[in-house]
Amino acid sequence: MTIPSYSPRDGRVLGEVRESNQVELALAVRRAAVAAPSVADTTPAERQRWLAAVADALDAHQEALAQLADDESALGMPRLLGEVSRTAEQLRFYGRVAADGGYLGVTVDEATATAPRLVRINRPLGPVAVFGASNFPFAFGVLGNDTGSAIAAGCPVVAKAHPAHPRTCLRLAEIATEALAAAGAPDGVFSMVVGLQAGVDLVKADDIRAVGFTGSQSGGLALWRIANERQEVIPVFAEMGTVNPVVLTSRGARHLDEMAKGFVGSFTLGAGQFCTKPGLLFAPAGHRAAEAVAAALHQAAPESTMLTQAIAENVTAGVRDLVKAGARVIGKAGGPGRGWSADAVVLTAPIGALTSGSRLLEECFGPIAIVVEYADESELYAALTQLQGSLAGSVFGDGEDDPEAAAVIARLAGQVGRVTLGDWPTGVAWAWAQQHGGPWPATSSPSSTSVGAGALERFVRPVTFQSVPDDVLPVSVRDAVVPENPWRIPRRVDGVLAGP
Amino acid sequence: MTIPSYSPRDGRVLGEVRESNQVELALAVRRAAVAAPSVADTTPAERQRWLAAVADALDAHQEALAQLADDESALGMPRLLGEVSRTAEQLRFYGRVAADGGYLGVTVDEATATAPRLVRINRPLGPVAVFGASNFPFAFGVLGNDTGSAIAAGCPVVAKAHPAHPRTCLRLAEIATEALAAAGAPDGVFSMVVGLQAGVDLVKADDIRAVGFTGSQSGGLALWRIANERQEVIPVFAEMGTVNPVVLTSRGARHLDEMAKGFVGSFTLGAGQFCTKPGLLFAPAGHRAAEAVAAALHQAAPESTMLTQAIAENVTAGVRDLVKAGARVIGKAGGPGRGWSADAVVLTAPIGALTSGSRLLEECFGPIAIVVEYADESELYAALTQLQGSLAGSVFGDGEDDPEAAAVIARLAGQVGRVTLGDWPTGVAWAWAQQHGGPWPATSSPSSTSVGAGALERFVRPVTFQSVPDDVLPVSVRDAVVPENPWRIPRRVDGVLAGP
Repeated sequence: MTIPSYSPRDGRVLGEVRESNQVELALAVRRAAVAAPSVADTTPAERQRWLAAVADALDAHQEALAQLADDESALGMPRLLGEVSRTAEQLRFYGRVAADGGYLGVTVDEATATAPRLVRINRPLGPVAVFGASNFPFAFGVLGNDTGSAIAAGCPVVAKAHPAHPRTCLRLAEIATEALAAAGAPDGVFSMVVGLQAGVDLVKADDIRAVGFTGSQSGGLALWRIANERQEVIPVFAEMGTVNPVVLTSRGARHLDEMAKGFVGSFTLGAGQFCTKPGLLFAPAGHRAAEAVAAALHQAAPESTMLTQAIAENVTAGVRDLVKAGARVIGKAGGPGRGWSADAVVLTAPIGALTSGSRLLEECFGPIAIVVEYADESELYAALTQLQGSLAGSVFGDGEDDPEAAAVIARLAGQVGRVTLGDWPTGVAWAWAQQHGGPWPATSSPSSTSVGAGALERFVRPVTFQSVPDDVLPVSVRDAVVPENPWRIPRRVDGVLAGP
Repeated sequence: MTIPSYSPRDGRVLGEVRESNQVELALAVRRAAVAAPSVADTTPAERQRWLAAVADALDAHQEALAQLADDESALGMPRLLGEVSRTAEQLRFYGRVAADGGYLGVTVDEATATAPRLVRINRPLGPVAVFGASNFPFAFGVLGNDTGSAIAAGCPVVAKAHPAHPRTCLRLAEIATEALAAAGAPDGVFSMVVGLQAGVDLVKADDIRAVGFTGSQSGGLALWRIANERQEVIPVFAEMGTVNPVVLTSRGARHLDEMAKGFVGSFTLGAGQFCTKPGLLFAPAGHRAAEAVAAALHQAAPESTMLTQAIAENVTAGVRDLVKAGARVIGKAGGPGRGWSADAVVLTAPIGALTSGSRLLEECFGPIAIVVEYADESELYAALTQLQGSLAGSVFGDGEDDPEAAAVIARLAGQVGRVTLGDWPTGVAWAWAQQHGGPWPATSSPSSTSVGAGALERFVRPVTFQSVPDDVLPVSVRDAVVPENPWRIPRRVDGVLAGP
């Protein structure tokens, strides 16, 4: 059995990739399970070296990788060249986070007259299954944030190739396998399987200890349900798309034209195929905000070629559903008209239609957005409470002295993973302070992040050693605990935190 | 409708407690939801003061509380007096952890030429439902670790009274309510409901954001399933009982008699009603370890009065099931013979009977343990891999130079939340470095702990503020972030961790 590789620009089949059979799936999981103890016992600095080797290999193949991905995704060379670089930088970043050692949470309570000595440290969970996204072939792909943070945390990875760009995935896996072997990483620290059934079997495999997923709600929740039916239930960290509300304050309406331009730029970026796409704009009544956005869309006239035929069809169906749910199309920009193209569409809806359960409150993946007018703050706040959890929420006010902006920021903080002020939500920096997650159903695990330093914490579990002298501790624990602090990592001893 | 309060010593009904009706349940949840934003905006030091006030009130009522709990639990005054003190200390500890502020995970990446400013901080989830345990009316009860850590983290709590000691729960709720009000805490920061249906409705209530549970696997998994069927799924932190294996090494066998005495003391402590009870001892063949344990049990002759009639019946049924699964009773000490008494029983089984799915590998709550002999390390290790995840695992060797002990510690670290060397697993210190959790099915959330400083992390969720100047941040975030660091908390700025 094979899966086809398509060109979204004309729907042509460019090639095909063989699906993994059951034996290959079992072998990939087995290799990861065999590698797990030795990976867990490496130093963080050693894993940093592996990740840097993969990053260097990505940089070395930047042009060819971007070309391959452009053929399969139509995301365009400038974006994809940048994304390869970004992915390499991310891998180096996760290596630095590992070497920093803060993620280990090393905590020591020395023995007292009444209490035993306790040593607590985060240990890798073991083999992690990674399901990358369609919309970021590199940054959230088989060598993206999930794989980088899992390996940094000491977990082998078995990735599943994405059917939207299978040949790109295959090439990435080849490059990573070669780079990891050359860097001296154990066999099995990374492997990849292909095919829907292999993906399902991967989540069911006894030796898999956690799942990282980026993609649609239906896909993420399906894997979550499979994992919940295992004999040993495992955590699924599914980061799923959301509506990502934007609020324009009353005073912010002074900047409506500029804001409308920015909104169009953000919701049509990458053909609207961002999990952080701003899908719902709340604007103060009386400024004809929807018309302003429609005009900006008309002027920008983006051409949207979608990643897959299914996504293109869902955009059209989604607009139809939004209209059925009470929205009205107020502006449109035609797709390129060939291949898997879609129109970029802006709709408007009465704020009263935003009631729990309405289709208007669910993500519509693609270059689609809704503009809603609010009469006053109480109407706005009532509508915000109807929203599901989101990855991001954004506020556009009038400079730094806009009291309404502060009030909306405080409210959004209870509903989203990231609140931006005057910034569009698309664009997720890999950084120490990043949070790419959010309340259900933005993610299946609201306290987790799939980007940033916190991403490693998904793949570890604390273990406490009681009354175990240092020289009897497992080697990787001992090196993190001994007084010499050879890894130069932060530790908390008797309740007092000390840097390296 | 009422639920009865029983005396386990003779099965007599001592009184009754009225169940909460739907209106009362809804009101408790509503009060918690209304309190949530103001509790979230208090300083950690303020919440420390509330918890200290409750702790002082517990100390002031120590004698009467212990007496009430002894009537309902038969756990004995010395143990219960100590447990009231311990519970007060725990509350003070969680207050200190809050005030330390490390749990907030404050992280700031200042803006660069290419990246926006990011401020990340853990924010309270909102109202938490707490289901305490039968076996620790105080320390793991309605004012126990879950409630203490949730309030410390800034979350209001709605606790459910435990049917094994409903009058004790009611009194605890009165004391807490009064102390919190006197300390100036907002109405709704703590309340309690009574009854099975109220408990189910509590987990289903829209405004509840997380669940803390300590108890049986059947109870914990039932709540986990209910939470997974909500429209907005919420995290359930269920800490459930486990087998907690103990390994005696070959060289450790020199100390068999002393070890057997300690084993009996640990597995019959509190009538074996500990989630950390050591239930399965692996001993080297050729030392008649099972006989030694049986002799120690005979000599200790513990009297076991169980907490409830159901638990007492399950002990008897459990022994029958273990025998059916291939174990043999080798020693027994009679219960007191009246009320809900049970025999303490030690069994032995061939190591080959420990296969995945066997009843021998599941917890048998109560004063029951199994001794299994292993021929060599490979037989021992093969058996260990069959075990489910456990809260704790213990190793008894011969001093600090026993290489077999180190090897077993390294293996157990992959299967349990806490590994002890030469210490019995019963007894869980509340401390910075504690880990009271473990892989599924020890808990529903293997990376969480229900005791120790890490317990707060269950009830928070990170939020990142992008390009938001300090004076526009919500007040509780601002105070954690401003350069003056008024709360004196640890923070990571531009990747560098700094203490207060």
